[in-house]
Amino acid sequence: MFATVDTSMEFSSLALNSSTSAIAYCRKHHGRFVAELEEFIRFPSISAQVQHNGDIRRCAEWLAGHLQKIGMERVVVFPTRGYPIVYAEKCHAPGKPTVLIYGHYDVQPAEPLIEWQSPPFEPVIRGEDLYGRGASDDKGQLFTHVKALEALLRGGRRLPVNVKCLFEGEEEIGSPNLPAFMIANRRLLAADCAVISDTQIPAAGQPAITYALRGSINFELEIFGQKRELHSGVLGGAIHNPLQALCEMIAQMHDQAGRIAIPGFYDRVRRWDAKERAYMNRVGPSDEKILQDAGAAMGWGEPGYSLYERTTIRPAITVTAIHGGYQGSGAKAAIPTRAVAKLNFRLVPDQDPQEIDRLFRKYVAKITPPGMRIRIRTFASSRPVLIDRNHPALMAAARAYHQGFGAAPIFLRNGGTIPVVGLIQEILHLPVVLMGFGLPDDAIHGANEKFYLPNFFNGIETGIRFLTAIGQRQHASLVRRDNRQIFVTQ
Amino acid sequence: MFATVDTSMEFSSLALNSSTSAIAYCRKHHGRFVAELEEFIRFPSISAQVQHNGDIRRCAEWLAGHLQKIGMERVVVFPTRGYPIVYAEKCHAPGKPTVLIYGHYDVQPAEPLIEWQSPPFEPVIRGEDLYGRGASDDKGQLFTHVKALEALLRGGRRLPVNVKCLFEGEEEIGSPNLPAFMIANRRLLAADCAVISDTQIPAAGQPAITYALRGSINFELEIFGQKRELHSGVLGGAIHNPLQALCEMIAQMHDQAGRIAIPGFYDRVRRWDAKERAYMNRVGPSDEKILQDAGAAMGWGEPGYSLYERTTIRPAITVTAIHGGYQGSGAKAAIPTRAVAKLNFRLVPDQDPQEIDRLFRKYVAKITPPGMRIRIRTFASSRPVLIDRNHPALMAAARAYHQGFGAAPIFLRNGGTIPVVGLIQEILHLPVVLMGFGLPDDAIHGANEKFYLPNFFNGIETGIRFLTAIGQRQHASLVRRDNRQIFVTQ
Repeated sequence: MFATVDTSMEFSSLALNSSTSAIAYCRKHHGRFVAELEEFIRFPSISAQVQHNGDIRRCAEWLAGHLQKIGMERVVVFPTRGYPIVYAEKCHAPGKPTVLIYGHYDVQPAEPLIEWQSPPFEPVIRGEDLYGRGASDDKGQLFTHVKALEALLRGGRRLPVNVKCLFEGEEEIGSPNLPAFMIANRRLLAADCAVISDTQIPAAGQPAITYALRGSINFELEIFGQKRELHSGVLGGAIHNPLQALCEMIAQMHDQAGRIAIPGFYDRVRRWDAKERAYMNRVGPSDEKILQDAGAAMGWGEPGYSLYERTTIRPAITVTAIHGGYQGSGAKAAIPTRAVAKLNFRLVPDQDPQEIDRLFRKYVAKITPPGMRIRIRTFASSRPVLIDRNHPALMAAARAYHQGFGAAPIFLRNGGTIPVVGLIQEILHLPVVLMGFGLPDDAIHGANEKFYLPNFFNGIETGIRFLTAIGQRQHASLVRRDNRQIFVTQ
Repeated sequence: MFATVDTSMEFSSLALNSSTSAIAYCRKHHGRFVAELEEFIRFPSISAQVQHNGDIRRCAEWLAGHLQKIGMERVVVFPTRGYPIVYAEKCHAPGKPTVLIYGHYDVQPAEPLIEWQSPPFEPVIRGEDLYGRGASDDKGQLFTHVKALEALLRGGRRLPVNVKCLFEGEEEIGSPNLPAFMIANRRLLAADCAVISDTQIPAAGQPAITYALRGSINFELEIFGQKRELHSGVLGGAIHNPLQALCEMIAQMHDQAGRIAIPGFYDRVRRWDAKERAYMNRVGPSDEKILQDAGAAMGWGEPGYSLYERTTIRPAITVTAIHGGYQGSGAKAAIPTRAVAKLNFRLVPDQDPQEIDRLFRKYVAKITPPGMRIRIRTFASSRPVLIDRNHPALMAAARAYHQGFGAAPIFLRNGGTIPVVGLIQEILHLPVVLMGFGLPDDAIHGANEKFYLPNFFNGIETGIRFLTAIGQRQHASLVRRDNRQIFVTQ
């Protein structure tokens, strides 16, 4: 059950004529495809920064225009309370399954800009990599599917399946408006399976399908001391300092060994048996590989687990920002009045974000020093996700990968969170294929983000083969199981 | 020795005719004096912020012009490597002592601006208070002496002593260029005593002379983790976070009880006998008074000491700023690469800043987590100061206060640092009279800084009477003791 899927024998006997001309088309247009991706990256579509409101909207319009151009139909830029959702479809394959392709055209902030070798929104190729914010997460990966559709439509003349595209602009801020959109448009979005390319594979020669994601919950912890700033000479040592108190509280989030110290935090964390851990150990990245990809000298964290396990089957708390005291040049001799920390929690099955929210608040209240006042705000929580590795859609993806990359894929867990996976399962009841084309050193969310161009091209071909493989199935065979039962959202 | 100086009997028999007309002049010009002080406050002469370079220089020129106008001589704006020093003198009292008046025309930063009820550099009177950055620290207090000189020169026709003014523009950044200036200008600055008004008195009806100041040393502690930002989902829990590490290190600066945990930190802290602590307890502010003035609900700090003791005879560490992670709007799911904290240490006799620097660096090295790199920068250190309460110059000040404020002054310690006091003692060998006119709720260094105008007026009169009292002494009587012996700079 946990073995690598060996699909090589099966492949050789498959008739793949329907995709041959699409692949030839694709190979002929590599140069233009890259130029178009660069155009896509040039929009600073940073959903976390309000000043980029216009850029995000322009990016959505550009994407919609592009889908129209390649022959997609019913292209709509749906307004939401936040940033628009771009929809397109091509449903002319009666009796065939329908594939919902999800991606996001918004990107993470690019700060600190000083760390970028070239400006984040001026894409540039160095070696075989295309550098730019969003090159990998998720514009580049999203674009593999757009180009696969173009190749099938222009090169292969028709799509082997029915296709619907759902591209949102708020993934990096937790997809606040997607659930309502999905609920309101269940019929429009009805499909047999979904495919998302927003994950990473271990190496260019080693494709992988992600079958587990961590959930997340984000907090802003604000602490208030005395009402006005006090001279640190006149009063230092006699009045408590909220910034010091914040540090002491953050320090109490972990014990000395690196375990999370919030009481009850691990109570619902699923303990995996030796078989699953052995599988993970066999196919997953080694500690050395993880450190090398991260550019880090040494690992850290909970004892008793490999780094791969720490980032996938164990939860984590990351302090992503602290702000307190005088932030200008020089120094100011004052006890500040307040301090604030941003915390990003990653959760694993069977942790429940709402319960974690309660446990965190209870613990913070307990460790807040007397006389200090706190305010906690909760943002963007997502449940952890597990996907059945044996679903036919995942099998089809495995075959497509094998041909696209010349190697059988392995099944991996990922420590990140893709809230939409949970939403697609919960609202649309679809199996989700996480077909990643990113590499571990893509520096997504960091400076000098890049996309390895051979993966872009192989990704397009994999997309073509995936749609072709799904098209060889009848609608019924894909939905023979009750997805709600199989695709456990923890 | 520790009793309040009762000088009331002495006063009644003093012939103070020389100051009578100066005081009458002063009372006639209150309105104009306040208007001129407002003009002075309008310069945003923030020495810590380079963008105010021009404002600081314009402020110095204005002050020099003002000194010229009131009849001071040899007015010079001395350039330094930083901001200029304004000098002026009036030395036409042969055989009389020379008084060096020190003050600073630079001010603390005004951020956070949002907390000000009126713009910091647009002074405004509400009730009996004049609000504005620098109103109390130190423009208002410096100006009491300028107006005392004007009153003596215009109202009383002549100065009863020789006077030299030394007004610097870098006090709030640690007076980096003052030592070199003093060393190069020892002859120019030669005097018999110095007077500084840059401290506070407990209440408008209770003047006080400050006889002890804490020293200080400032650090910037920077910590570096892995070289690039890492996705907190993909790697959270497996790679250590410099921001978390910084919090854990800051948390280790104090023990649970609020004592400083740096080994050896208290070794040289002088233990005061019961007599001195009883005096402090009698004349010093109560815990309740300190909390009330600070607007704080409760005290904090080292057990076994009153709040007054904690801020004067006990050292303190204040975290004045922390900066780390993404500081823009929204959140960024990344493990930051670095974090930085600014720390302000306050030292007491007989702590030595250089030794504290060594102890801090050693401790930080010890508690830095493996794999993290640190950088510590030391800024602006000053030794703690103690002044003999029985020096004739302090006695003269006590008499002047009694008349100016209608109450005998008490002798107080102050938790703040005035680096120039140590410099004046070490380089110029002068006794220093700390004749404060500020009030504890002046909010110096904070938002809504203000100066209580009755103290401005009483301060001017006290200045007039102080110079008059000093003028009744012969030069020799002031220097009968070796100042180097008496004025212990710890």
